[in-house]
Amino acid sequence: MASGHRSKKLTYLSCLALGMIFLAGSSSRAEEGMWTFDNLPSEALSKKYNFTPAQEWLDHLQASSVRFMDGGSGSFVSPFGLVVTNHHVAIGQLQKMSTAKKDYVKDGFYAKEPKDEIKCPDLELNVLVSTQDVTAKVLAVVKKGMSEEAALKARKAERARLEKEAKQKTGLQSDIVSLYHGGEYWMYAYKKYTDVRLVMAPERQAAFFGGDSDNFTYPRYDLDMAFFRVYENDKPLRNEHHLKWSTNGAARGELVFVTGHPGKTDRLFTVAQLAFQRDIVFPLTLGFIDRTIAALHEYAKLGTEPKRRALTRIFGFSNAKKAYDGMFLSLNDEQFMELRSKAEKEFRIKIASKPEWKKAYAGAWERIENVLKKHGTEIRRRVYLRILGSNLANKAITIVKLVHEVKKSDADRLDGYHDSELERLKFRLFSPAPIYPDLEAVNLETGFRLSLDKLGKNDSFAKILLELGDPKAASEKLTKATKLGDPEFRKKLVEGGVAAVEKSDDPMIVLARKIVPIIVENEKWQKKHIESVFTPANERIAKARFAIHGKNAYPDATFSLRITFGTVRGYPMNGTRAPFQTTLYGLYDRALGFENQGDWLLPERFWQRKNKLKLSTPVNFVSDCDIIGGNSGSPVLNTKGEFVGLVFDGNIESLAGRFFFDQSVNRTVSVHSSYIIEALRKLYDANDLADEIVTPN
Amino acid sequence: MASGHRSKKLTYLSCLALGMIFLAGSSSRAEEGMWTFDNLPSEALSKKYNFTPAQEWLDHLQASSVRFMDGGSGSFVSPFGLVVTNHHVAIGQLQKMSTAKKDYVKDGFYAKEPKDEIKCPDLELNVLVSTQDVTAKVLAVVKKGMSEEAALKARKAERARLEKEAKQKTGLQSDIVSLYHGGEYWMYAYKKYTDVRLVMAPERQAAFFGGDSDNFTYPRYDLDMAFFRVYENDKPLRNEHHLKWSTNGAARGELVFVTGHPGKTDRLFTVAQLAFQRDIVFPLTLGFIDRTIAALHEYAKLGTEPKRRALTRIFGFSNAKKAYDGMFLSLNDEQFMELRSKAEKEFRIKIASKPEWKKAYAGAWERIENVLKKHGTEIRRRVYLRILGSNLANKAITIVKLVHEVKKSDADRLDGYHDSELERLKFRLFSPAPIYPDLEAVNLETGFRLSLDKLGKNDSFAKILLELGDPKAASEKLTKATKLGDPEFRKKLVEGGVAAVEKSDDPMIVLARKIVPIIVENEKWQKKHIESVFTPANERIAKARFAIHGKNAYPDATFSLRITFGTVRGYPMNGTRAPFQTTLYGLYDRALGFENQGDWLLPERFWQRKNKLKLSTPVNFVSDCDIIGGNSGSPVLNTKGEFVGLVFDGNIESLAGRFFFDQSVNRTVSVHSSYIIEALRKLYDANDLADEIVTPN
Repeated sequence: MASGHRSKKLTYLSCLALGMIFLAGSSSRAEEGMWTFDNLPSEALSKKYNFTPAQEWLDHLQASSVRFMDGGSGSFVSPFGLVVTNHHVAIGQLQKMSTAKKDYVKDGFYAKEPKDEIKCPDLELNVLVSTQDVTAKVLAVVKKGMSEEAALKARKAERARLEKEAKQKTGLQSDIVSLYHGGEYWMYAYKKYTDVRLVMAPERQAAFFGGDSDNFTYPRYDLDMAFFRVYENDKPLRNEHHLKWSTNGAARGELVFVTGHPGKTDRLFTVAQLAFQRDIVFPLTLGFIDRTIAALHEYAKLGTEPKRRALTRIFGFSNAKKAYDGMFLSLNDEQFMELRSKAEKEFRIKIASKPEWKKAYAGAWERIENVLKKHGTEIRRRVYLRILGSNLANKAITIVKLVHEVKKSDADRLDGYHDSELERLKFRLFSPAPIYPDLEAVNLETGFRLSLDKLGKNDSFAKILLELGDPKAASEKLTKATKLGDPEFRKKLVEGGVAAVEKSDDPMIVLARKIVPIIVENEKWQKKHIESVFTPANERIAKARFAIHGKNAYPDATFSLRITFGTVRGYPMNGTRAPFQTTLYGLYDRALGFENQGDWLLPERFWQRKNKLKLSTPVNFVSDCDIIGGNSGSPVLNTKGEFVGLVFDGNIESLAGRFFFDQSVNRTVSVHSSYIIEALRKLYDANDLADEIVTPN
Repeated sequence: MASGHRSKKLTYLSCLALGMIFLAGSSSRAEEGMWTFDNLPSEALSKKYNFTPAQEWLDHLQASSVRFMDGGSGSFVSPFGLVVTNHHVAIGQLQKMSTAKKDYVKDGFYAKEPKDEIKCPDLELNVLVSTQDVTAKVLAVVKKGMSEEAALKARKAERARLEKEAKQKTGLQSDIVSLYHGGEYWMYAYKKYTDVRLVMAPERQAAFFGGDSDNFTYPRYDLDMAFFRVYENDKPLRNEHHLKWSTNGAARGELVFVTGHPGKTDRLFTVAQLAFQRDIVFPLTLGFIDRTIAALHEYAKLGTEPKRRALTRIFGFSNAKKAYDGMFLSLNDEQFMELRSKAEKEFRIKIASKPEWKKAYAGAWERIENVLKKHGTEIRRRVYLRILGSNLANKAITIVKLVHEVKKSDADRLDGYHDSELERLKFRLFSPAPIYPDLEAVNLETGFRLSLDKLGKNDSFAKILLELGDPKAASEKLTKATKLGDPEFRKKLVEGGVAAVEKSDDPMIVLARKIVPIIVENEKWQKKHIESVFTPANERIAKARFAIHGKNAYPDATFSLRITFGTVRGYPMNGTRAPFQTTLYGLYDRALGFENQGDWLLPERFWQRKNKLKLSTPVNFVSDCDIIGGNSGSPVLNTKGEFVGLVFDGNIESLAGRFFFDQSVNRTVSVHSSYIIEALRKLYDANDLADEIVTPN
């Protein structure tokens, strides 16, 4: 049977074997893969689907795709700078715009006229303009005989130099992306937009219907959308490229594409790296998440306003918890690890079989394994050498570091403080978004306690914290006393440079001054002992893959633009099949299945206007496109390049996608394009917006 | 997280530990258990739910509960003999009433007036009238010093004698039920009804919406109902007891009861017995099922009429396959078997700790294990010493056995041929239901081939089959030539006794005459070497359980009347929660999710009359009542004894219920009482029937 909790496991394990073959580089399953635009497997595509994307088609999609630096994707859907993304991508900005009196997260928002659109406090959008392979340049600075540490430093300096040079030349935000774990380096040049205004967002209960319970699951019934408008010179952007809207959506079995910015996959990790994730990284992360959620829930109990303030943070951490729990289960699947070990062993035997391969690539796996074994404890320690979760404390640390780093030559600076990175850093650092001292106190206290618990009182970092006294009292005192909540105060400190920072008696700055040396020391240790070994080892493994399999593989996700494709289709689940789509009928069914309560409470307008709606309207649908977190807000496109859906989630089986893609059950969950229009017109009286989207321009 | 394919496993395993404790007899989880009416855990019930069922209440439920000898349950829902059950319990009779021209399975049926009600060809209904503990009587015939074989024979003879005596005394069908694997014997006396007429059945696509795919799953949207009327002396029965109908159904969290006839659980099996199921019985059964389904599908391809003829058989085998696959997965769960081993070991240590316990009970487990080890191959062989699946061949075998057995003294007869069993045997044997020779040929051929494949050509049984020549040709010839399809011919043969049967040249009878001696020989061997050992060993284990834990436990299911209870509630599934109920909205959602096709094709009337329906009407709901196959058609009752739902399935997690009950996820799936009324009135124009049900009498 294709049913039952355990049979599911067997099902996907049978597919794992295939996955392993692919991971070794030779894929017959075209649907797997987050491809860079320069390396789409066109042959497989045209063979299987009889569709060959033209360069123009690809260029149009690239120019219509938007990166949300808050962590997500989006696309232009009108020639007037209109961008659609997910509500849960927009939620950070919605929260920052909200107050106790006007809660856009809870109540939603619609600007009937352009003048009503609200500027986001610190939203940065990027549109990829060009990409260029700079591998040779980056690697040219590594000279024979250099120590690994020196090589790492040279490489980093060169990357920063190239980025700065490119930015100066083109005026574009220029970031070097390391693909295939250092197998290639590419310069990505972006048009950057920072005047972005909110146009429309539904109530969170409509966008996130089903709440944390239904998050990462399917069948699903969410209106997870939000609209922003990009402005330039205080006027709506006139963008050449935007996606045409299909009100039909996609049919079952139809070939579809997704463009967007998958955040992170670890599919090319070695077995040692996977085991390290399983044994060290995930338990650490989950421990932190659990403590934070518990503390936030306590705080939220204090009243309506604390509940509002904590909501987006609780959402973010709960979302992360569910995702990490799912990935963690994959890592703990013995059969998965066995298959992975077997594949790696076979690959290494192949490497060893040819003298020139052996010379060039062998030994990299052992080096990685040895470093992880040797320095596991130190790596673990690093996590707690931070003020976890506190916005104010982290701003203080950034300021202290910044004023010192900018005095050094660009090549000598810490990661994150190179000239090419400062504009973005300052945009965030000086954000006018509100910071709530009472919520900050909770976050700070949680971080303090975690560091104390995990490091022990003899640790140099813990000693500094202990000097502050009781964590709760100290956190409250610090967050109340500091003036760092005021962006002007932060600006003045940075403008005042080292002198201003050194003499500041702001208690958070005073604390940061004590902490920064310890953090910096650890960062340097990390570079010397870990990164300098990992970087060349990963590079060698990547090159071994290229040598044996050529480049018909995709790199792990890096929050850079990718394109993936697949078909709209259901999958086996729960002893039966999940449908390829859901409808408005199902939305009401699920609400009533939970008595229209809690996570499944539908906003009142859904009941009042029910009879206006066409209940057979598709709501969400699934496809076997290969996505992951960061793809939220991505457009789903048909072969004509039309917008047929809005990616907002993966099913529960997709969580394993961090480590492998199982086409039989891994699904992308999207909002159907026709639901968006139906909702705008009939639920939100947003006909103007709907017209702007569907009118051909 | 409470999500993901693998986490489900962890979830239920954590509960298994509890299950084990219970299986050893001391339960704090009142919801687990298929209780006999004399031994309801009233204390736990009143403690947890503050509800103490009165004896009158129990008697009323018992008298309103109906057993379908086709394999299912039902209940009286009017004082005029009206019985409700599932469509899938009724389907056998519906099929037998149907012809190429009038297909009640496909099209449904409604008798607008009593005169239109159609008599079922061979449906027997039972209503339990009384029960009596006869353990002492049955065991009294086993004398000290008797061989195990002699003891078994004495026990069987006494059971047959007691049944016959009871029947003669009361006129009631009297069956002895072995409870707790022989720990107790009870005489169950039934009022038997054989004039049962069809009143109403919806189209199968409405009853079995979602088909084999959705079978054993939830959320679900089925109208799995059918109505029969019991007649006595050609008039509707006037029954004193019937269930009052609640159109409100049950609320979330409400305490509900289910009465009915669970068919078979193996929760008290020893580890050796479980392993035997896993290693021998289930692979055998699944092999047979797979071959049969494949053959039937081939046959169904031949045309519309073959498709119609094969449908209920394909349904039956597919249903069994899904159930067995689910159970088989449980058996193959190493952690389940480990926990079970541990519990058994601990129990046996306890037994060994007290000299009188040790003397009385120790050694039983080893005896069972040794028999299974020693005779595994013979037991396996037995399965194929039969004409699997052929109705005609089995009728021939029954006739040949019958005429010989009735000549012996009752005590000396084979199982199934005692005086107390003959009325029921003949009712089935002489059924006027149609038998289709072409379908019979397919079944016969499948059985032939399986026996030949599995036994090898040197086996005595296989040799007889080989003499017939090519299995396909032989099967076609036999089923075409035999006159056994005619019930009058069968009657005449039986009336003619041994003489008529011995001289018959009907080819199926000729074959049966050759086969029966081999089957009988094997049955005797089986009794001598297996059953005679198992019976006392199981008895001792049962008594050991009573000795240590008292009788606060329930016996394994035996297709005898039980009562179970629990609350209406959803459960964790698929990374989120399953709702406690579904609605008509969801029915349309699921149909559209599969484009109203295949398993999810809704009958036309559902689309035509959609706007008449109240879409918020609950369709199906789940409760944590402990049921299993055989409970199909059971009423779900509130504390007032009102009918709130109609049991029709368990969720996919419930399949493990054959071996253990996991309250966290095992759920009973029922049709909501209000959907039944809504459908009768608005979809089927069956207002008279609806009125009969809901009108208080």
